[in-house]
Amino acid sequence: MREVFQQELREVQDRLVEISTLVADSIERATQAFNESNVALAETVIADDDKIDALAAELDELAIQILARQQPVARDLRIVVSALRISASLERMGDMSEHIAQLARYRFPEKVVPKGLRGTFRDMGALDVEIARKLTELLRTEDVEIAEQIRNEDDKVDALHLSVFDKVLGETWKGAAVDTVDATLASRYHERFADHAVSISKKVQYLATGDWVPLDA
Amino acid sequence: MREVFQQELREVQDRLVEISTLVADSIERATQAFNESNVALAETVIADDDKIDALAAELDELAIQILARQQPVARDLRIVVSALRISASLERMGDMSEHIAQLARYRFPEKVVPKGLRGTFRDMGALDVEIARKLTELLRTEDVEIAEQIRNEDDKVDALHLSVFDKVLGETWKGAAVDTVDATLASRYHERFADHAVSISKKVQYLATGDWVPLDA
Repeated sequence: MREVFQQELREVQDRLVEISTLVADSIERATQAFNESNVALAETVIADDDKIDALAAELDELAIQILARQQPVARDLRIVVSALRISASLERMGDMSEHIAQLARYRFPEKVVPKGLRGTFRDMGALDVEIARKLTELLRTEDVEIAEQIRNEDDKVDALHLSVFDKVLGETWKGAAVDTVDATLASRYHERFADHAVSISKKVQYLATGDWVPLDA
Repeated sequence: MREVFQQELREVQDRLVEISTLVADSIERATQAFNESNVALAETVIADDDKIDALAAELDELAIQILARQQPVARDLRIVVSALRISASLERMGDMSEHIAQLARYRFPEKVVPKGLRGTFRDMGALDVEIARKLTELLRTEDVEIAEQIRNEDDKVDALHLSVFDKVLGETWKGAAVDTVDATLASRYHERFADHAVSISKKVQYLATGDWVPLDA
């Protein structure tokens, strides 16, 4: 029974890695579409989000079946519950990619990134992509040093997020209301994407170290 | 064993009702603080969010203990997993209240609600409060007609959310960038609050009808 359980846990882990890979691909295309106002690329991100949602739902189904069949207790039980939470966060990361892509689509053929913020959004996008790639690696290897790296990158995303507001609320800002709205929403989506990655990292640390992380961490 | 399980499920339900009551109280104070730029009231919302987080974490702990002790299968198992998801959504609703309160605090002593949007935010806030009260009632009674009412109110929130963008992006908008930022963020938080309530409603419908709702619904 124990061996079957370990095998099922590996299946859960493989699927988390698969979903995380799709999320990383999604944010890479979303941020490129956003930064280059590439509406065709944005459409692919929007279309592909259903796949992430479906895989997350299938993973939940598997986790529930494991709970029913294997009746795990103690740490094993918490691992399966962690997987359910990680899947929910990955699904939300996919939603953030989709929202970023939608902004690019809404404004087309206008450029969506306001002047004066091109470099900021390029940096935020690159950080989100890097965070997503590292997250996939963390889920694959459970190397807790990667969790630390993700937290550091998230700090950089938070700093850029604040700098967007500094810019938009500063005296030199000449953007129209539409630029202000786009900057506000896009920055929020980029920041939330990274937040979810940090939240997942903490749960993976549990898988590796056994320290249970409460919901709100 | 079955009777103990039913008793534990009632305990879970009671706690969900308790958290939902706090969330309803939180959004009521948050929207009042926001609409009236009442920074003292905003501070209470921000301070009290820790309590919601702690209760949600305790509920998760209870749900995990029930899984370990009772080893539920089939529908019983899904009920406990649903409770974990509902708790996560309630916790996020509390965060949205907190964010709305933070906006009021950031701008103080300036008014946070831009001119021309007072009525809109008053309506959105009233709808969010009503949705939260109905959600508490739904969790208490499992009366699925309330779920339908919540979906209808959420449609109204979505319409108001879109009207905020129409206003801000319209030709008559004279707001400064800070007004545009505040309107954008506040509207998003009000809308997300209602979204989470709809997502919980669907899960409560499962508890009542047995139709399992996938993660992304």
